[in-house]
Amino acid sequence: MSDRIKVVIVGAGFAGLRAATILAKAPDHLDITVVDRRNHQLFQPLLYQVATAGLSPADISWPIRTALRPYRNVRVLMAEAKEVDAEAQQLVTCEGRVDFDYLVLACGSTHSYFGNEHWSEVAPGLKTIGDATTIRAKILTSFERAETASDIEERQAHMTFVIVGGGPTGVELAGSVGELSRFTLSDDFRHIDPRQARIILVEAGPALLAGYHESLQREAVDALEGFGVQVWTSKKVTDVDENGVSLGNERVEAKTVLWAAGTKASGLGRDLGATDRVGRLQVNDDLSLNDHTNIFVAGDQAYFEGKDGQPLPGIAPVAIQQGKHLARNLLASVRSQPRTPFVYFDKGMMATIGRAAAVLQTGRFRMSGFLAWVAWSVVHIFFLIGFRNRLLVSLQWLWSYFRYRRGARLIAEPTTVLSSEPSSSGTHSSENARAKGRKVASAGSR
Amino acid sequence: MSDRIKVVIVGAGFAGLRAATILAKAPDHLDITVVDRRNHQLFQPLLYQVATAGLSPADISWPIRTALRPYRNVRVLMAEAKEVDAEAQQLVTCEGRVDFDYLVLACGSTHSYFGNEHWSEVAPGLKTIGDATTIRAKILTSFERAETASDIEERQAHMTFVIVGGGPTGVELAGSVGELSRFTLSDDFRHIDPRQARIILVEAGPALLAGYHESLQREAVDALEGFGVQVWTSKKVTDVDENGVSLGNERVEAKTVLWAAGTKASGLGRDLGATDRVGRLQVNDDLSLNDHTNIFVAGDQAYFEGKDGQPLPGIAPVAIQQGKHLARNLLASVRSQPRTPFVYFDKGMMATIGRAAAVLQTGRFRMSGFLAWVAWSVVHIFFLIGFRNRLLVSLQWLWSYFRYRRGARLIAEPTTVLSSEPSSSGTHSSENARAKGRKVASAGSR
Repeated sequence: MSDRIKVVIVGAGFAGLRAATILAKAPDHLDITVVDRRNHQLFQPLLYQVATAGLSPADISWPIRTALRPYRNVRVLMAEAKEVDAEAQQLVTCEGRVDFDYLVLACGSTHSYFGNEHWSEVAPGLKTIGDATTIRAKILTSFERAETASDIEERQAHMTFVIVGGGPTGVELAGSVGELSRFTLSDDFRHIDPRQARIILVEAGPALLAGYHESLQREAVDALEGFGVQVWTSKKVTDVDENGVSLGNERVEAKTVLWAAGTKASGLGRDLGATDRVGRLQVNDDLSLNDHTNIFVAGDQAYFEGKDGQPLPGIAPVAIQQGKHLARNLLASVRSQPRTPFVYFDKGMMATIGRAAAVLQTGRFRMSGFLAWVAWSVVHIFFLIGFRNRLLVSLQWLWSYFRYRRGARLIAEPTTVLSSEPSSSGTHSSENARAKGRKVASAGSR
Repeated sequence: MSDRIKVVIVGAGFAGLRAATILAKAPDHLDITVVDRRNHQLFQPLLYQVATAGLSPADISWPIRTALRPYRNVRVLMAEAKEVDAEAQQLVTCEGRVDFDYLVLACGSTHSYFGNEHWSEVAPGLKTIGDATTIRAKILTSFERAETASDIEERQAHMTFVIVGGGPTGVELAGSVGELSRFTLSDDFRHIDPRQARIILVEAGPALLAGYHESLQREAVDALEGFGVQVWTSKKVTDVDENGVSLGNERVEAKTVLWAAGTKASGLGRDLGATDRVGRLQVNDDLSLNDHTNIFVAGDQAYFEGKDGQPLPGIAPVAIQQGKHLARNLLASVRSQPRTPFVYFDKGMMATIGRAAAVLQTGRFRMSGFLAWVAWSVVHIFFLIGFRNRLLVSLQWLWSYFRYRRGARLIAEPTTVLSSEPSSSGTHSSENARAKGRKVASAGSR
């Protein structure tokens, strides 16, 4: 074994990559291994645009290896992390065990269905590129099936979209689906009018965008209603199946239900310390675990209380600042210096609602409407790492802004190593039985 | 029933869409239904760039509905065509039956494994977006697995890429994989040197690019060898499995085998007339079927002999010209005018080999190298329908030309409606059993 200090970072998101680059540049003798089960990092704040056909997956993701290429002391391991063996100081992955002196857990979070995990099969959430292309295919296929549906109720169910959860993701999804149906698809069909699509945003709490100022919450509702979105607050989803949702006694028939209601932290290392209700690991004020001070936790996976006594939210700025801070504390330990407590610097928050509308607040300053949307666009373009992606995304946004078009309206087949015969059905095999023999009227005969 | 004439076009490729737009613009009373099981058309000549991470799927595909939006007498039906009921004049689809007075079959072709269809599971071909992202994931994952492989033979097998078939697709794939390993990935790994990748292009015939002038065939071999590709001609693949290929007594261990050796025509309507060895329907010189003159066949699905007595190749210009011609003949019949025979106007052919190399021949004129590559780029950009795509693709090509980068290096998860837990394995579940418990050395200890 070498006498170099081994650092293993699990998760190449905002927190993990920020920590990795700071540690890699340090003059100390560190060997860093970044473990992620995907080969790409993801700019998650724009994932909803992939889901709603505004951007391609590659526009908001780029290879982890490329980001870390300059650092010869960093190794990337594409592997699934299985568990942390704290005693042996090893991370167990599907590609074998990896030794560490220091471990950074930055595995993020996934959807939570609050004990109804079977809902995930019919109401996908939005965390990965795979989720986004699944949601995109679901939305676009619904319009296709509405176009061919023979009875009115079935057609209406295909044209009803329920988004569960009124946080930023839910608001962004609902606004985008509204935009898609009102503008992008408006002239594409012959039997249906996509503008008649019914889009319902359901929030269990009393208001959308909890945490935002009341005036901005109202503005968000107004903007959404302008896109034809119905906002239902104080309504709780009690059941979800493939034909719709139940809200207590109320029932909505909808072939597309999207889940933006809850997340839970990754399960890796959950047994290493105290966790909160959604599985986040409670960390010390230096971001390490109480019983394992050589293990740091950051981002969505960490439970850390802000100045107001509330846990910090699972957003990119928190993850970035924590990744930076834990890297400094790790280096302090390596140099036998004292660690410092993490303090979150709140730059504010923003959410976009659809074409040319957004809300933004930072401290006492609040803004909404077109200018907020411009600010939102600038900030998001700016933080897209890699000039190529920034340039391309800007161009695509400008294009779709002026033309009301969305370039990525692609229902892609699943990636598989099985090639299929032309006679075998792709996306629609499940529909075959139902539709076999039914006659579809030719164009113009209706 | 209406008294309008019903035209059904199956397949929205080069032939089908060209026919559809001409028929849609005609002053005659036509109701046109375009049936395709996908929602997008595909610029297939650039599909290999998606497979080798140069472009995103949405860069070379766009919604069929968008292309046909201006024509109110055209309806798009996203459905799998099942069979042609010529007697009832109906097309049977998974969404029901569609009446026709005239039918256009332009369903294209798929891979053919010459009776060894089970090879498709390990040696994917390249026809659809799904194929391309599958191949991309296979190539990129091979490098990842080579990086973590513990023994030399396994590593070598992961770094060996066999491309079967020395036609344009095989040449383009081999050149791109060469470029990827020599330039794009060269600095991305720590344990392997991607430049050491072994890329073998196997062709059963005596030369690559059959039909090209001998001097260009030689130039292609030179260019490929410059990218580190080994060209094996007059070698026949006798077996393919997940660990490699057999060529008679010879065996090559390779985890990635790509199939570019053969195609066969779509099976739809195969019983309506005489077919050739690869299932193409023999058409009259007006592009209709002998026994069903109201059914036209075009593109890869049609067997039509050129002036030299050879069947026309399955390339875009043939499909486009046939789509145009059959539309005119169909209109002639509607107007009770005589049909005219189809004559193919050969504009020449071109193939690209990798970064800044291509071969091109038109009549007696031949060109190769950098200028041919520029010509190839201009022609392909020009024919990309839709200005947005043209602009974006040009920018991405310029970028990757100057930076040796490929922007779409994304191993995407399969699109599915099942969301997955963070603890469940994605791409690598099949590797788990093999790798469990094996120890991976930390960075720097090798």
